[in-house]
Amino acid sequence: MIRTVVWGENVHEQTSETVASVYPDGMHNCIAAALNEDPGISATTATLQEAEHGLRQARLEATDVLIWWGHAAHGEVSDEVVDRVAEAVWGGMGLILLHSAHFAKIFKKLMGTPCSLTWREAGERERLWVTTPGHPIAHGLPEFFELEHEEMYGEPFRVPEPLETVFISWFQGGEVFRSGLTYRCGAGNVFYFRPGHETYPTYYDTNVRLVLRNAVKWACPGSERIRSVGEAPNRETENAPELIEERGPKLHTDGQGGFR
Amino acid sequence: MIRTVVWGENVHEQTSETVASVYPDGMHNCIAAALNEDPGISATTATLQEAEHGLRQARLEATDVLIWWGHAAHGEVSDEVVDRVAEAVWGGMGLILLHSAHFAKIFKKLMGTPCSLTWREAGERERLWVTTPGHPIAHGLPEFFELEHEEMYGEPFRVPEPLETVFISWFQGGEVFRSGLTYRCGAGNVFYFRPGHETYPTYYDTNVRLVLRNAVKWACPGSERIRSVGEAPNRETENAPELIEERGPKLHTDGQGGFR
Amino acid sequence: MIRTVVWGENVHEQTSETVASVYPDGMHNCIAAALNEDPGISATTATLQEAEHGLRQARLEATDVLIWWGHAAHGEVSDEVVDRVAEAVWGGMGLILLHSAHFAKIFKKLMGTPCSLTWREAGERERLWVTTPGHPIAHGLPEFFELEHEEMYGEPFRVPEPLETVFISWFQGGEVFRSGLTYRCGAGNVFYFRPGHETYPTYYDTNVRLVLRNAVKWACPGSERIRSVGEAPNRETENAPELIEERGPKLHTDGQGGFR
Amino acid sequence: MIRTVVWGENVHEQTSETVASVYPDGMHNCIAAALNEDPGISATTATLQEAEHGLRQARLEATDVLIWWGHAAHGEVSDEVVDRVAEAVWGGMGLILLHSAHFAKIFKKLMGTPCSLTWREAGERERLWVTTPGHPIAHGLPEFFELEHEEMYGEPFRVPEPLETVFISWFQGGEVFRSGLTYRCGAGNVFYFRPGHETYPTYYDTNVRLVLRNAVKWACPGSERIRSVGEAPNRETENAPELIEERGPKLHTDGQGGFR
Repeated sequence: MIRTVVWGENVHEQTSETVASVYPDGMHNCIAAALNEDPGISATTATLQEAEHGLRQARLEATDVLIWWGHAAHGEVSDEVVDRVAEAVWGGMGLILLHSAHFAKIFKKLMGTPCSLTWREAGERERLWVTTPGHPIAHGLPEFFELEHEEMYGEPFRVPEPLETVFISWFQGGEVFRSGLTYRCGAGNVFYFRPGHETYPTYYDTNVRLVLRNAVKWACPGSERIRSVGEAPNRETENAPELIEERGPKLHTDGQGGFR
Repeated sequence: MIRTVVWGENVHEQTSETVASVYPDGMHNCIAAALNEDPGISATTATLQEAEHGLRQARLEATDVLIWWGHAAHGEVSDEVVDRVAEAVWGGMGLILLHSAHFAKIFKKLMGTPCSLTWREAGERERLWVTTPGHPIAHGLPEFFELEHEEMYGEPFRVPEPLETVFISWFQGGEVFRSGLTYRCGAGNVFYFRPGHETYPTYYDTNVRLVLRNAVKWACPGSERIRSVGEAPNRETENAPELIEERGPKLHTDGQGGFR
Repeated sequence: MIRTVVWGENVHEQTSETVASVYPDGMHNCIAAALNEDPGISATTATLQEAEHGLRQARLEATDVLIWWGHAAHGEVSDEVVDRVAEAVWGGMGLILLHSAHFAKIFKKLMGTPCSLTWREAGERERLWVTTPGHPIAHGLPEFFELEHEEMYGEPFRVPEPLETVFISWFQGGEVFRSGLTYRCGAGNVFYFRPGHETYPTYYDTNVRLVLRNAVKWACPGSERIRSVGEAPNRETENAPELIEERGPKLHTDGQGGFR
Repeated sequence: MIRTVVWGENVHEQTSETVASVYPDGMHNCIAAALNEDPGISATTATLQEAEHGLRQARLEATDVLIWWGHAAHGEVSDEVVDRVAEAVWGGMGLILLHSAHFAKIFKKLMGTPCSLTWREAGERERLWVTTPGHPIAHGLPEFFELEHEEMYGEPFRVPEPLETVFISWFQGGEVFRSGLTYRCGAGNVFYFRPGHETYPTYYDTNVRLVLRNAVKWACPGSERIRSVGEAPNRETENAPELIEERGPKLHTDGQGGFR
C-alpha cells in the first residue's frame, strides 16, 4: 500500500465561485479520490490552512509519495515545512508537482533554477504526446490525449535537463511545453506534471487520473528513508577501507567536524 | 578575452600558518595567476571580506566566469549575494566550484540537493582519471594525473546526475569520487572540480592549473546575459502565435500578473 | 513473477579447468540460482551452443528480463539473434549486461559507442561504492562492498552518458570504473554491471547476487511489449489531430511509405 | 577555421523536378553556402555518387564537422563508410544530422535505437521553440521561429534521452517533436536538427542557416582526433599505477590480448 498525501493549497476553492463549482470538495479531495481508485494506493489530504500545513514531521515519515498543488499562496508556505519536505525527498520520499506548483517553493528549491515559463488563460485545447512509450508513468495511455480547455504553459521552461521527458504538450495557440519530466533529487523520485488549472475539470479527466496513479507508483521509494543526507561524515584514517598512514599538514584536529 | 573573477574566502590564509605558508598571497591569487597564464583569460579576484564580498551587481554584469573557493565561512556569505550570483548563472554566467565549495550556499542552491560527501584529511594520494576523453575540460591532459597529498572526498556525493562526468578520483585509502561534473543551470554552464585542500599545494600543480583554464573556456557563455529569467510572462490571447478565441471561465483578469 | 532468461556463453566452463572448477554447472546456472532465491523471479537459462543460441523469437516474447554474460565468443553470436534481442529491448524487455559483455554485439549495438576500457587480470581487490543510495538496484546494500579477487576494468569506459551511475569501483592497482550504469533503450531498461570475471567466484558473492536480483526487478517492464518500434507511420492529412489542408509541393504519393 | 563537409545524398535533386527547382545546385551546396557565410567555417561538399561517397579516410581525418542529409538512398550508403564515419565521431569529429537523416545508417548506429517517428507531408506550418535559451546552438535566435511549409515529424521520436533538448517543434496539424537534440558519442559532439524536407526552401531560411552555423561551431572538437577508441588495452601488473602483486588464477597468458 503506497501511503500518499495530496497537499492542496485550498485557496481558490474558497475564494472563486468558478473554482468552487468545479471542485466543490477542493482539488485535493478530487485528486485523492483519483488515487484511491487504485487498491494499491492509500491517499489522504493536507492543506495550507492546517497546522504546519498538515505536514508535521511524523506525517512525512509515514508518507511514501507527496503530491503538491499550489498557486495563489506559494509565499505563505513556511520555509520550515519546505525544508522538511526537501529533507524527506532527499531521503527517498517521492514528490509529484502539479501545474502551478512549478513556482512552489519546494520545486524551486529542488530544481535550483527559476522554474519560470510563459502562460495564457484562454481555455484553449492542449494535447499531450507520450514521448517515452513504455515508461511506467505512461502505462495504459494512448499515444496522445487531449484536454479541451486548459491554461497554456509555454517554453522555455527554466528547469534542469530532466532524466526523462515523458510528455510534451501541443497548445492550440501555438506553444509547446515539456509537460511530464522526471528527476532524481537525492534518493527521491520527483515528477512534474503540467495539467491542472483550477477553473477547468482537468482532474476529472480519465487520462489525467491514470497518469496520477501511475506517477505515484513510479515515485514510490523502494528503500527505507535515508537519514542525515546532509551530513558529511569524517571517515578517519584508522577507519579507511585501505590501510594508510596519515601524513602532511592538517587543518582539522582529530574528531573535529567539517566546516559548513 | 574571458572576464573571470576568482572568489576566495580568504580565511584560512589569515588564520592558519600552514595555509599561509603554502599560499602566502592567498589561494585566490594563486588561482588567478594560473588563469592569467592563458592570454585569452583575464582573471581578477574578490574575497569574502570586501564590501558585498567583492561581487556587486555591476561586477557580475561584467563577469563571464566566476570561480568559487570557500570552506570555513560558508555561513558568512550573504544570502543577497548568493541570490545575485544565482541570477547571473541562470542568465548565462559560467560558474566553477572548487573543492570545499561543495557546501557553499551557491552550490547547494543551484543543485537543489544536500551536496554532502565523506572526507578524511590524511594527506593521501589522489589519482584523477579522465572519463570523457576529448572533453574540452580534459584537453591536453594525460589519461590520469596524481596529486600526492590531498584530502579525501568519498561517494556518495549527493548531487543531481550531471550532464557529464569528466573526472573520477581514486584515493589511496580506498574511496572513489566523481571529481569533475558538468551542469547547465538555466543558461549557465556550471562545473564542480574536487581538488584543492588548502593545506596542500594543489593549485600549483600543472595539471590542475590546466583544468582550471580549460574549465573557464568551457564555462564561458556564448551569448549575452539573459535578463528576467525568473519572470513568467503572460502571452495574452491576442498575441498568441496562432489565432485563437478565448473561451471558458477565467481566474485572472486581463493584464493581471501570475501568482508567485 | 518476472520471467528471466540468463544467457551464458558457456565456453570457458568447457575449455578452462580453472573456470570449470569455480562454476561446475556453468556460470549461467549459478546466476540463475541467485535469481531464483527471490520468489518473485523465475529464471531459466540459454547458451550460445543451443539452436538460435536458445533465444528463439517465441522465447523472447515470453521474457521480461534477459541477462547476458559472454567473453570469448562474442563473434560467434549470430547477427540475426542480436537484432532480435535489440528489437525486444526497444519494445520493453529489460536487459542486464555482465562484465565482459561490455564487448557483446548487443551492448555495442545498443550503446552506439565502442564500449572499450582498459583491463588487467591480477586478482586484485575491487571495492564497489554505491553512488546513488536509495536506487532500487542498490536496495539493501551497504555503502560499499568488496570483491577480494577480480579482474580490473579501468576508465575511460567508452559508453554514452548514463541515466544514472549506480556504482563506481575502486581497484587496488589504482584504477576506477563506473561499474553500474543505467540506460533506457527505446522502451527497455538496460543495466550494465561490471563484476564477474570467470576465474573468480564473484557470482557466489552475497552482495553481487543481491544486485542481480535488484536489477532484474528494476529492469522489468511495466507495460506490454511494444511492437513495430522501427516503423515510421504516415499520419495522413485527413487523420491529423487538427484540421489542416494539404498545400505545397509533395514528394510522396498518397499511401506511399516513407524511405528507409 | 572549422573544416566542414556537407554530405548530400543528391538523389531527389536529380529525380524530382520539384526538388531540382528548389535546390538547382543540390541541397548540399545550398547548405555549404549557408555555412560559408561565416568566415570561421570552411565548408565543402561530398555526395553519395562519389567514390566512397566522397568520404575517404584521408578526408575524414581532415574534417572537424560532418553534416549529413539523406533520404531516399540510406540503404545505398556502404557499411564500410558508415563504420569509418562512426570511428571518426568516436574520436572527436562533430556530426550534424539533418531531417530525414534520422533514418541514416550512421544515426541509427550511433543512437542504438530505431530512430523512428511519425510523419505527414502536407506543407503545414512548423514553429520551433528554443527550450534552452543561451545554448550556443540557439545563439542569436528569437524565442521561436516559423517555417511556413514543412513536413511534419511527430513524437514518439525513438532516440535515447539527449544531453540537451534545444528545440521543440509545434505543428499545425497537432503534433510536437523534439527538433534539436544534442548527444556526445565517444569524444564526438552530435546534433540532430529536424527541419529540411527537400520540397520546401527550408535551407534558405535565415534562422535555419543560423542554426546550422551555430551547430557547426558547437560540434567542433577542441582536441586532436583520438585514435584506437575501440581498443581495450591490457595495463599489465607491472604497469599498474599502484604497486600490486598478481595473485589468483588467470585466464590470459602474459601479453595475450583480450577477447572480442
